[in-house]
Amino acid sequence: MPRLTSLKSLYRLSSRSSSFLPAANVIPSSSFQWGQRHTRSVETMASSKLKAAEHLKGLEGSVWVEFVKLTTEEKAINLGQGFPDFAPPNSVTQALTEILAPGSNPLMNQYTRSYGHARLVNAIAAMYSKFIGREVDPMTGVLVSVGAYGSLYYAINSHVNPGDEVIIIEPFFDCYEPMVRMARGVPRFIPLRPKNEGVTSTRDFYLDKEELKGLFNKKTKAIIVNNPNNPLGKIFSEEELTVIADLCKEHDVMCISDEVYEHLVYSGNKFTRMASLPGMWDRTITVCSAGKIFSATGWKLGWSIGPQHLIKNSQTLHQNCVYNCPTLIQEAVARGLELEFSRLGQPECYFLELPRELEEKRNKMEKVLKESSFIPIIPEGGYFMMAKYGHLGVDVSAYGDGPQDYKMVRYLTKTQGVATIPCSAFYSAEHKSLGEPYIRFCFIKEDCTIDKAAEKLKAFSKSLKA
Amino acid sequence: MPRLTSLKSLYRLSSRSSSFLPAANVIPSSSFQWGQRHTRSVETMASSKLKAAEHLKGLEGSVWVEFVKLTTEEKAINLGQGFPDFAPPNSVTQALTEILAPGSNPLMNQYTRSYGHARLVNAIAAMYSKFIGREVDPMTGVLVSVGAYGSLYYAINSHVNPGDEVIIIEPFFDCYEPMVRMARGVPRFIPLRPKNEGVTSTRDFYLDKEELKGLFNKKTKAIIVNNPNNPLGKIFSEEELTVIADLCKEHDVMCISDEVYEHLVYSGNKFTRMASLPGMWDRTITVCSAGKIFSATGWKLGWSIGPQHLIKNSQTLHQNCVYNCPTLIQEAVARGLELEFSRLGQPECYFLELPRELEEKRNKMEKVLKESSFIPIIPEGGYFMMAKYGHLGVDVSAYGDGPQDYKMVRYLTKTQGVATIPCSAFYSAEHKSLGEPYIRFCFIKEDCTIDKAAEKLKAFSKSLKA
Ligand SMILES: Cc1ncc(COP(=O)(O)O)c(C=O)c1O
Ligand SMILES: Cc1ncc(COP(=O)(O)O)c(C=O)c1O
Repeated sequence: MPRLTSLKSLYRLSSRSSSFLPAANVIPSSSFQWGQRHTRSVETMASSKLKAAEHLKGLEGSVWVEFVKLTTEEKAINLGQGFPDFAPPNSVTQALTEILAPGSNPLMNQYTRSYGHARLVNAIAAMYSKFIGREVDPMTGVLVSVGAYGSLYYAINSHVNPGDEVIIIEPFFDCYEPMVRMARGVPRFIPLRPKNEGVTSTRDFYLDKEELKGLFNKKTKAIIVNNPNNPLGKIFSEEELTVIADLCKEHDVMCISDEVYEHLVYSGNKFTRMASLPGMWDRTITVCSAGKIFSATGWKLGWSIGPQHLIKNSQTLHQNCVYNCPTLIQEAVARGLELEFSRLGQPECYFLELPRELEEKRNKMEKVLKESSFIPIIPEGGYFMMAKYGHLGVDVSAYGDGPQDYKMVRYLTKTQGVATIPCSAFYSAEHKSLGEPYIRFCFIKEDCTIDKAAEKLKAFSKSLKA
Repeated sequence: MPRLTSLKSLYRLSSRSSSFLPAANVIPSSSFQWGQRHTRSVETMASSKLKAAEHLKGLEGSVWVEFVKLTTEEKAINLGQGFPDFAPPNSVTQALTEILAPGSNPLMNQYTRSYGHARLVNAIAAMYSKFIGREVDPMTGVLVSVGAYGSLYYAINSHVNPGDEVIIIEPFFDCYEPMVRMARGVPRFIPLRPKNEGVTSTRDFYLDKEELKGLFNKKTKAIIVNNPNNPLGKIFSEEELTVIADLCKEHDVMCISDEVYEHLVYSGNKFTRMASLPGMWDRTITVCSAGKIFSATGWKLGWSIGPQHLIKNSQTLHQNCVYNCPTLIQEAVARGLELEFSRLGQPECYFLELPRELEEKRNKMEKVLKESSFIPIIPEGGYFMMAKYGHLGVDVSAYGDGPQDYKMVRYLTKTQGVATIPCSAFYSAEHKSLGEPYIRFCFIKEDCTIDKAAEKLKAFSKSLKA
């Protein structure tokens, strides 16, 4: 039906009003054929002036668009996209309910300050001053954005010029690459390498110092570090971060430190903030997410923290892109942060409660995957677990195109009703083979959800052995 | 205090760790002086690699940033920025409260479909199919964005290549120009001209056909039409729109039709949608705002509607920019639209109720301004009124830099406690003098707010005569 409409409307376009002859510049001589107007196709349309800007070329695809759709269609148990299936903590939902209550301030429904609602930037500045160990200015050192996603876009697009190089560590949260390309920058990739074939912990994935050094040069504008990392769940040690920091300082490179999983650190691991390392505050934009902090990914609120000379560039882009973020969500998150900040370090603080619960879920997921014959890589942080499946020997050749892990994910979703995400999506074209052996399981789910998936995965594993 | 921190941190940067000598590429020979390192200034900093991307140059300023801050500082009565000081209708606030109620679906707090929450795009498609008079496909013809602002950014940035020309009609909503410049496009401006010196209705502002024709050429990629217009409040007649449409079709140009004030049409005026004109669906992106429709500007939700071959480009940019919009706001707006759609044309439908109330406020504002010796231009739509002040003969020379209207707005805010917006902000550099005689009053305010402003404005006018 849409297709028909679209063909009809194309025809209407080609035989338009006053005179049938289009202006000369409308006809791309290479593709328009006289006498064939009834078969003008969408491609012909696209060769008119009405086409996408060059910087979007090749960026149409997204692993999420395909697999979110598939998960919905198949009604599969969703261990794919990274979000919890339980409610956010009272500290934020109750705050939002109060903000909406009849008789409360109607201005909470109207525009607020462009760079961030005053109460929120104050709460953020107070908290991160403590976390980073230096004074963060609420007005010039913070920018509130639509999710961490928005902050990443701003940090990249407001600094990268055409031809600038940006170093990306693999596996990486998949939006980094198109964001760099949209800025007409050149992404340079370096994979975390497993120490040996049989690694089972993210601690055994390392960054090769010489290889990293080789990527820094005059054109290097920025490096993006995701710590704790998604999809791997690696937490970079202070030593590893210092290697990166020293190269940044040596080559005058900025660091975009994506720390959305900042509180999700499991026993025995230590999380260090890039901006807290000597000399790094001045060249680091730290990116955070209220959605991840408060298990409310659908609230889509995030922020950038950094020195004024960097944040002001993100602010300029923001004010000419969406201008401001939803006031009521900002107010609710502000109240939530204030409450959690007041009980920092206490067991009932959500920043401790959530990782405590998640560590159990991580352990449960590890057990489930092992019992179903997958080989999981145990994460130090975050809420994802990568696992190998190749040795299971499943024939997935009938499940679409692309890398093996895409086929495996389609297979598991369609035949077993368990949705995951293929890990090669988190690697560049040149390194896809490094991700292909893995699929990613998200474990920030109700225990009953994991149990239901467990049943299916175990039955699947049994069927393979039978 | 921030200034001190920033100087200290700059110093730390300049004398950094391992060796004092920075890599050769760090030192821009023109600005770095040996032996002067203790006085390295912010400019020196900006000449390192840590500076903004070129496409942001000159776009740091924003009329809103200055005047929103001034209004807050002076605690002035706010007739400046365009938002109501009353609550949004129950149809959306109640919906949002229900979505948040304990025991309701927790997934409403998590990510939803990237291009728009299913229930919302279905509601939008159903409604605009009726409004535009053709079938709108919910999946391929709609994109939900962070406000109309986000949709404008997407429409421009996903289509404009460096050097492409974009025609902007003045006075214009101020973000159009920086959005075109960020895409490295070239804005071409054409002012609406008053028929004569003494015009008092927006109907008497017209677009010169020959002047407009002269702006269309091979490089013209798009024209942005804001109807009903902000700040003027003009509603373009079908004849005026047809002139624009014919030129678009002749030159294969797309039209970005900003229709955020779609329902705010006052008695005796008729609003026509650009996309409903013959042959225009295929080349038009219509931009709308739930914030404007539901008097909830702080909810920051908007959408683009158009043919698949244009919307898909905006979708590509969106999925690599913020990825998706807040789920709970989308669900609440969806429920609100469904309710209003079910009572379309009935007096209790908010789409009729709001303009009915606003027309009275418009009339009230007209009376107030006339009684205070301003000369208002009566709008046909929207919620702003431009007014002349020059004949009052106020000496505003002590009120900062820039055009006369900026000074007048600062004067009124600081000395009279009434905040407005200077109209030259809505004109290009070359045409600022056309806007300078006017300041803009926003009248979507509680009657008591307008009454309070009235008192102050009348006293002010009296004091001038004394
Ligand atoms: C590493 C990383 N960065 C950023 C984001 C985006 O966060 P938000 O939902 O706040 O935009 C995600 C979401 O999965 C993520 O995993
Ligand atoms: C003409 C026009 N377009 C777009 C917008 C932005 O709308 P939103 O708040 O939905 O981003 C406004 C807001 O004032 C406006 O006046």
